[in-house]
Amino acid sequence: MTAIQRKRPYILVTNDDGIDAPGLTALAKAMLQLGEVVIIAPREEQSAVGHAITLRTEMRAVPYRFGGSLAGVRAMAIDGTPADCVKLALNRLLERRPDLVVSGINRGSNLAVNVMYSGTVSAATESSIRGVDSLAFSLVEGEAGDYDVAGRYAHVIGHKVLRSRLPRGLVLNVNIPPVPLDDIHGIRVTCLARARWEESFIEEPTVSDQIRFWYKGEFFNLDDRPNSDIRTVESGYVSVTPIQHDLTAHGCIDVLSTWSWDDVSP
Amino acid sequence: MTAIQRKRPYILVTNDDGIDAPGLTALAKAMLQLGEVVIIAPREEQSAVGHAITLRTEMRAVPYRFGGSLAGVRAMAIDGTPADCVKLALNRLLERRPDLVVSGINRGSNLAVNVMYSGTVSAATESSIRGVDSLAFSLVEGEAGDYDVAGRYAHVIGHKVLRSRLPRGLVLNVNIPPVPLDDIHGIRVTCLARARWEESFIEEPTVSDQIRFWYKGEFFNLDDRPNSDIRTVESGYVSVTPIQHDLTAHGCIDVLSTWSWDDVSP
Repeated sequence: MTAIQRKRPYILVTNDDGIDAPGLTALAKAMLQLGEVVIIAPREEQSAVGHAITLRTEMRAVPYRFGGSLAGVRAMAIDGTPADCVKLALNRLLERRPDLVVSGINRGSNLAVNVMYSGTVSAATESSIRGVDSLAFSLVEGEAGDYDVAGRYAHVIGHKVLRSRLPRGLVLNVNIPPVPLDDIHGIRVTCLARARWEESFIEEPTVSDQIRFWYKGEFFNLDDRPNSDIRTVESGYVSVTPIQHDLTAHGCIDVLSTWSWDDVSP
Repeated sequence: MTAIQRKRPYILVTNDDGIDAPGLTALAKAMLQLGEVVIIAPREEQSAVGHAITLRTEMRAVPYRFGGSLAGVRAMAIDGTPADCVKLALNRLLERRPDLVVSGINRGSNLAVNVMYSGTVSAATESSIRGVDSLAFSLVEGEAGDYDVAGRYAHVIGHKVLRSRLPRGLVLNVNIPPVPLDDIHGIRVTCLARARWEESFIEEPTVSDQIRFWYKGEFFNLDDRPNSDIRTVESGYVSVTPIQHDLTAHGCIDVLSTWSWDDVSP
């Protein structure tokens, strides 16, 4: 073990609900038990921004002061997306390379195909690209959902990852069911469920040939596998899905390589 | 072959550079040789928006009129992201389910980890989630780059995919090198290169404790494999990378499933 590894872990906390979201506070508190915490998060809510980055406008980073049990924790609010926050943090704002990046605790689940749209997950993906162990936490919708309960599981999983380290390039996408602590049966490793949205859209009347839309949609789970993330949280377990940023469908390369491309000439 | 399959292919064309981008015109022209084309694309440039969708504001769809060889092609401009365009198209604006969705031709490459940030690729990913064969096309930066050359390869690849169909859930991410037609050696199936950005950021002076940033970055290819997408376009081949939207790292599930999570209690 080197001198650096013997230091207290250095942990970046971010999210997509904005720096004043209760889920971020709960996550930062949980991480304070594991190491030194820096919070760098969007100034305002950034849900459904996916992996967007801010290339065409200036970003500002403004110091932010937390109170209570987070008093004294270094924090900055960014006019930007979750991916921007992580890029700024890793390249400019942090004093050293973090040992762990945690994102969340998101207000609502990030299950199945929804990870594609999720700013919470994208923040973690961004740091995983840079080789930092990264975790995304989301609290599934539900009346009994409790960020403090979710924070306890963030602590358990963060502790484990700091000890065991993740395979390079991996993010753990964690979803916590909305039930009291005693009703959570444990932690399960899962796969993303096959699922999809069916959007219906709300149309606003117009006098011209324009059409004006708002999103409205219904979500369909198409996956009955007991180890899918949706079934797992429905069964009262914390779902931990390993996800990767290398989108290459390696299993399809061989098949496609046998294709001839000369049916028509360019 | 059913009656429906015997119909002319129905092809949706979209992009992230905006409906008036020359790459979109070239792609639509190429697709007109293969079937009936509908263009539904962002009204303004939407680069680097990733898989963002517009949940918090209204979107408008406005009819758009092309001239020249695209005269008479049905087209609509959307105040929204590429993923919004595809969702609106598939759920509301198209008369029937398309046989193919093509996105691009992007102004500049979408190679390696840049697919994460790419609106061009996200549009294709969105339709692949819905089970439609989907292709993303990008013309690599370079003085000799020519959208018409890229369009010829879009035609070749579109033709092949309409005949052979893709494995479900797959997108072909196509990058065309910026060289004259005769200097393109052919088409190669590739994997995304391991690469990363190192952002340095430009800082603007401020009088307060705020920091103001603009992105500035350098891109590093970390991958020498001859079948990586970067090496392939550098060698004068068109790169075709199969990419998937299921981000589950299936290969890591077994390892993680052996982890014990009870080092600390929740």
